[in-house]
Amino acid sequence: MNLSIGLIGGTGDEGRGLALRWAMAGARVTLGSRTLERAAEASEEINKLLDEPRVTPALNRDAVRGSSLVLLTVPFDHAAATLESLREDFEPGSVLIDITVPVSFDKGRASYVEPPEGSASEHLQKLLPSGVSLVAAFKTEPAHLMLDPEARLDCDTFVSSDSKEARDRVIEAIRSIEGLRPVDAGPLHNCRTIERMTVLMIGLNRRYKVRTGRFRVLGLEQPQAG
Amino acid sequence: MNLSIGLIGGTGDEGRGLALRWAMAGARVTLGSRTLERAAEASEEINKLLDEPRVTPALNRDAVRGSSLVLLTVPFDHAAATLESLREDFEPGSVLIDITVPVSFDKGRASYVEPPEGSASEHLQKLLPSGVSLVAAFKTEPAHLMLDPEARLDCDTFVSSDSKEARDRVIEAIRSIEGLRPVDAGPLHNCRTIERMTVLMIGLNRRYKVRTGRFRVLGLEQPQAG
Repeated sequence: MNLSIGLIGGTGDEGRGLALRWAMAGARVTLGSRTLERAAEASEEINKLLDEPRVTPALNRDAVRGSSLVLLTVPFDHAAATLESLREDFEPGSVLIDITVPVSFDKGRASYVEPPEGSASEHLQKLLPSGVSLVAAFKTEPAHLMLDPEARLDCDTFVSSDSKEARDRVIEAIRSIEGLRPVDAGPLHNCRTIERMTVLMIGLNRRYKVRTGRFRVLGLEQPQAG
Repeated sequence: MNLSIGLIGGTGDEGRGLALRWAMAGARVTLGSRTLERAAEASEEINKLLDEPRVTPALNRDAVRGSSLVLLTVPFDHAAATLESLREDFEPGSVLIDITVPVSFDKGRASYVEPPEGSASEHLQKLLPSGVSLVAAFKTEPAHLMLDPEARLDCDTFVSSDSKEARDRVIEAIRSIEGLRPVDAGPLHNCRTIERMTVLMIGLNRRYKVRTGRFRVLGLEQPQAG
């Protein structure tokens, strides 16, 4: 495989988990951060879990510049400012994968914070330079599992975008990640549902006292001719 | 089992599917409609699929009066008017299970029609007489599968209510339906997510050219000590 993945703000749980899973899939991963030092720490942590080092630390702008797929893995509250600061670094034709979900917590209870555009992904899409496509994915998987190289993911990830071409490209790339099935979730406005599903899952995890809750869609296969 | 289930407006696909599955679970089912004739037709259709007849036709008001759990299975657009007309028939302490989802279609594409209260269930809860609890459930399962007695459901149903007691009662009852696992989805505001998930699934079914798409939540079991 000849896939290069860049992470913007890849030092958090979500970013490190995705860096690990893409590296396990054989991709070349550039883990970006605002400081090279933090990027280096996180990259080292992930590389230790791999047979061979595949994760390279970088400043965010260099993670954007050199990668065929760029993942935005900062918390939603920092997403807009981060994207604004990197506008010049995206090459036309590149694809940004947005994993953010706007959540607020009150006494441990999560609530969805609806952006004016209807969803985080629709909000962020507006901030991208023209020629850059936004694809929403990886919104509902538990970071806890992603970070454990021994854990089977065994779930689905919902992939949506207003660009069918970019969506298909991301779906194809995700197929290389073991145990994670990309589900074609259509246009970006479906993120209004998918982002809320993350919040629902936070509640389920809390109610069932687990950290491993995740979605699987059954019955998407064509019925076999009988 | 000593469970009596009443369906308000049980002649549609959803109502008949639920009548069948509850009857297969051993419940006594009263299938209500605005006319006894239509209720009788639908009941006969379901009884033919069963080893012994368990479904009795009735007017809606009689389905409400005689049942320990009442299901509202009319389309959302008729739900409020239907409930209003039956206000006097609910006994205090009874439980209404709301399965409605407000959807509009444009050229085959489904959109969620958000009620002012945030969800259909929150909207309808306001219309109930005091002492009657509303529980949302059965919002995401494919009617197509429910109606086929040979089909394995093999999926989850999300159960939410602001009354923990009513929610637990419904969860316990649903456990008698084979292949359908009730998931405790917390307070009623989570219907804002669950109802949108129905619309997402309509889109997935369309995109994947199936009618069997349904949700399963993985990872809710406590990890085994070990």
